[in-house]
Amino acid sequence: MNEHHETLLAFMQTQGFVWGPAPELYGGAAGFYTYGPNGTLLKRRVEEKIRTLFSTHEFFEVETPTILPAIVWEASGHLGGFTDPLVRDADGGVWRADKLLEEHYAKHDIKTPVPVHNDELLKAIKATNMQAPNGKKLLDEITNHSLMMRTTIGTEIEGYNRPETATATYLPFLRYREHFRKKLPFGVFQIGKAYRNEISPRQHLVRMREFTQAEAQLFLDPQEKEMHEQYARIKDTVLPLLSWEQQVREGEPENMSIQEAMHKKLFGSNAYAYGIHLAYTLFTSFGIPEKNIRLRQHGPEEKAFYASDAWDVELYLPSFGWTEACGIHDRTDYDLRQHAKHSKQELDIFIEERREKVIPHILEIAFGVDRPVFALMDIFYEQKSEQEGMSTFNIPYELAPVHVAVLPLQKKLSTTARNVYAMIQQQGFVAIYDETASIGKRYLRQALIGTPYCVTIDFETEENNTVTVRDRDSQAQERIPIAELETFLRSTYKR
Amino acid sequence: MNEHHETLLAFMQTQGFVWGPAPELYGGAAGFYTYGPNGTLLKRRVEEKIRTLFSTHEFFEVETPTILPAIVWEASGHLGGFTDPLVRDADGGVWRADKLLEEHYAKHDIKTPVPVHNDELLKAIKATNMQAPNGKKLLDEITNHSLMMRTTIGTEIEGYNRPETATATYLPFLRYREHFRKKLPFGVFQIGKAYRNEISPRQHLVRMREFTQAEAQLFLDPQEKEMHEQYARIKDTVLPLLSWEQQVREGEPENMSIQEAMHKKLFGSNAYAYGIHLAYTLFTSFGIPEKNIRLRQHGPEEKAFYASDAWDVELYLPSFGWTEACGIHDRTDYDLRQHAKHSKQELDIFIEERREKVIPHILEIAFGVDRPVFALMDIFYEQKSEQEGMSTFNIPYELAPVHVAVLPLQKKLSTTARNVYAMIQQQGFVAIYDETASIGKRYLRQALIGTPYCVTIDFETEENNTVTVRDRDSQAQERIPIAELETFLRSTYKR
Repeated sequence: MNEHHETLLAFMQTQGFVWGPAPELYGGAAGFYTYGPNGTLLKRRVEEKIRTLFSTHEFFEVETPTILPAIVWEASGHLGGFTDPLVRDADGGVWRADKLLEEHYAKHDIKTPVPVHNDELLKAIKATNMQAPNGKKLLDEITNHSLMMRTTIGTEIEGYNRPETATATYLPFLRYREHFRKKLPFGVFQIGKAYRNEISPRQHLVRMREFTQAEAQLFLDPQEKEMHEQYARIKDTVLPLLSWEQQVREGEPENMSIQEAMHKKLFGSNAYAYGIHLAYTLFTSFGIPEKNIRLRQHGPEEKAFYASDAWDVELYLPSFGWTEACGIHDRTDYDLRQHAKHSKQELDIFIEERREKVIPHILEIAFGVDRPVFALMDIFYEQKSEQEGMSTFNIPYELAPVHVAVLPLQKKLSTTARNVYAMIQQQGFVAIYDETASIGKRYLRQALIGTPYCVTIDFETEENNTVTVRDRDSQAQERIPIAELETFLRSTYKR
Repeated sequence: MNEHHETLLAFMQTQGFVWGPAPELYGGAAGFYTYGPNGTLLKRRVEEKIRTLFSTHEFFEVETPTILPAIVWEASGHLGGFTDPLVRDADGGVWRADKLLEEHYAKHDIKTPVPVHNDELLKAIKATNMQAPNGKKLLDEITNHSLMMRTTIGTEIEGYNRPETATATYLPFLRYREHFRKKLPFGVFQIGKAYRNEISPRQHLVRMREFTQAEAQLFLDPQEKEMHEQYARIKDTVLPLLSWEQQVREGEPENMSIQEAMHKKLFGSNAYAYGIHLAYTLFTSFGIPEKNIRLRQHGPEEKAFYASDAWDVELYLPSFGWTEACGIHDRTDYDLRQHAKHSKQELDIFIEERREKVIPHILEIAFGVDRPVFALMDIFYEQKSEQEGMSTFNIPYELAPVHVAVLPLQKKLSTTARNVYAMIQQQGFVAIYDETASIGKRYLRQALIGTPYCVTIDFETEENNTVTVRDRDSQAQERIPIAELETFLRSTYKR
C-alpha cells in the first residue's frame, strides 16, 4: 500500500466519506463498505450525472430485482462459469491464485502472461516458489470458487444475489418490445446493487463484494448498426485510444478521431463507436481529468466469449495505477438467444420495413458507481504537511458533496444565519450549517470536504441584507445581496 | 381482488410502471417486481422528496451494506425472532397462518383477535374449519418460518440480506459520534433495499420479498427529549389521530393539535411528537391527499418489544383499504445496548454539560418507498369506460414521471422539435419526444402516464419561436415563446 493510499483512507474515514470494512463494530467483513454522509452525497452526485447523461441520450431507467432464481443464472452462464481460481495456504487462508501470480510478476517485472487454466496456473505459481502474502506456504491445489452469492426464495427456490445488473436488465425484453412500440433501437439502463463473492478483496471501493453497478443497454437492429445520424455528430471527436496493437508493442495511447479509428477498423460498427463515445463522455462528465482517462482495447484472449467488440475505459488512480472502470461490449444476440432457449419464448422483433423477424443485438456500457467515486477522491484529495498549509479536497465544484456552507461570524447572528440556510435549502441546494469553532477553522473544515462556497453572515448582513461568499479555490471573498445568492449558486449548480 | 385493483394492475403493466412478478420470462417469483421506465421515474421522484425533507431537517444520508454477517442479526434479535407462522396444505402449498385467519375473520365479520402463539393460532384455525385459498386441506401443524434470506460471505461466513435498513444504520454509531463532534441530537437516514422472505406474498408492491426501505433515525440525549425549539414550531399542527382508545370503541380518527395530543398523553415526548409531525409532513409531501392519511396508535399487545411509543402512518388504498405505510417508534436505548453487549464496545456519548455518559435513545421513522409509489398509482389512476372518455393518471404535477412531452405537429417539424426537446432536457427537466400517431392520440398517451405539459411544435414555431403548451388537467392551450419555457416549467418543478 503506497503512502498516498494510506493518507487517502484516513481522509475518507475522518471526513465522513467511506468507513469500513463494515460492520466495523464487529470487526468488518472484507469487501463491504459504508458511505458516510459526505461519501453518500458524492455518490448521489455521480449517480445524478449518470441519469442525466443516459436520459438525454434517450435511455430509460428501469429497476429490476437484485435476487433472481437459479434458472436465470443457468441461462446467462453465470452458474457454471462465473468463478475465480482459489488457492489455500497452510494456515487455512484463501487467496485468488491468478491475482497472486499477477502481483508477483508485476513486482519482479516478469512479462509472462498469467495462465488461464487452473493446472497451468498452479504450475506457474509453483515455479515461482512464492508464498501467500501472509508468509504461509501455498497448498498444491487450485479450485474454482463461485462468485455467486446463493440464497433461498420462499421455502425451496434456489436464488442468487445478482452478480451484474445486465442480465437482470435483459429479462423484461418482451415488456420493452411493447413499451417502445416494437421499434429499434431502444435503450435502457439500471443503477443498482450487484454482488460478487470475491475470494479476498483487497482494493477498497475498487473491488467490493457488494457494489453499485450502472449499466446501459442499447438494443439494435443488427442491420442498422450504422446509426448515421448519431455517428455524424461524434465522428470528429478525438479519443485517447490504446489499441491492442499498441499494447503488444508496449506503446502509449494515441489521440485519434473516431472516424480515423473506424478506418483502422478499431471499432466494428458506427453503433459501437457511439457507445465508446458515450462512455468517454460519461467519465469526463464525472469531472475526471482527461489525462486520467484512456480507452484500452481487449486482446483476443481477454475478450469475453459473447463480445464481438470490447474496449475498457481505464482511469489512472494514484492509489492503484491504471484501473478498469467501464467495459463497452457488443454482446451481439448472445443474451437474447440464451434466454429465448431457456425460457422457450421468442425474443425477437418484427421489422416492418423488411418484413423480417430479428433478434436484436445488445450494445452494453457496463460500469459501476463506486470506482468513479473512489477515483474522484483519489485524484482530488491533496494531502499537505503542516508546513505546506492545509490538506484540501479539490473536487470540481459541480460534484462537491456539499454545495454551500452557511457560517455565522458569531453565535449571536445565528437566527439570521439560520434563515439564510433555510432559504438556500428551499432553493434545492445541499447546504450545511456550522456555528462551532473560529471562522478560519470552519473555512478549513469546508475546504477539506471540498465545499465550493462559504456564505458568511456578519453584522453587515443584519444592516443591509448582504453576505460574503468565499470561493474555495481562489479564497476570494465577494459581498453579494442575499436576494442574488440563488442566481449566483445556480450558475455553478445547474439542475 | 377488487375490480379497481385489476384495472390498476393492467394500467401499471401496459404503461411501463410495474411489471411482474419478476422474472416474467421464467414464470416469476412471488414478491419480486420490476419497475418499468415510468415506474422508475415515479420512484425516483418519491425518493427525491424523502431526501429533500430529511436533508432540510438536518438528517444526513448514509449507505451501508445490504449483506451483513450473522453476528449482527444475533445482536438485533432478528436471527431468532424474525419469523412468521407457516402452515402447509395437503398439496404442499405454504401459507402464512395468521394472515389466513385474519382474512377469514374479516370476511365473516368476526371480531375475535388473531392469536399470536402458534398453538392457539392452530386451534383457532381448526375451529373455523377453513381451507387454504387454493381449496386444499390445511395440515395440523404451524412452524416458524424465518424471514431472513441467508447467504455466505467468502468461503465460510454466514451472512444475511438485511431485513431492514435500521439495524444496518445503527452499526456505524462510533463513526457518527466523531462525525457529529460528540453532540446530540443528530439524525441519519438510509434509502435502500431490504429483504423479507415472506411465505406467500400476495399484495403486489405492498408486500414484497425485496423492497426499498427508507428509514430515518434520530439519536437523542434521553434527558433532552423536550426539543423546545422544534416543538414550538409544530405544536399547533392538527393531525388525524386514531388513538388506541378510539380503536377500542371503534371510533374514527380525531383531528387534534399536537399540543392537545401531548396533553392527552398520546405522545410520550416532544421529540416523539416531532417525529410524528415529520412523518405526516413526508406523506403529504408525496402528494397523497390528506383524506387518505391517518395516524394510528399501536395497542399494548401490538407494540414491538423495543418501542415505548409507537404509531403508524396509514394510507387509504382503494385496492386494499387502510394500509400501514410508516412506523414511528421511540426505540429508547434498546439497539445501542444490544450492540454494545454483543460487540463489547461502549456505545455512549459523554455529555459535557452534565459530565455524564449516556446511551442515546433512537427515534425511528421507518417506511418504504414502494408503498407510497403504489399509493400514488392506486389513488390517482382513474379508469374510465369508453363512453365516459379516456382513462387518466391524475398524479400531482410535481410527482409526475415525465415533466413535459415535446410533440411536433407533423414529422417535417422534427428538427425544430428535437432542438426544443434537447433544450428542455439541458435545463434538467425529464422530457419525452413523440412524433408517432395523431396529435390527439399523443395527448391521450401523455394523459395516461400523467405528463402535466405537452409542448406542441407547429408551423408558427418556425415563424416566431413560440410553442403551445397544453395543460393536462385544464386541457387549456397557451402559446408562449420558447425562451420563456424554462421559467414556465420551473414554476411547477422546483428543484
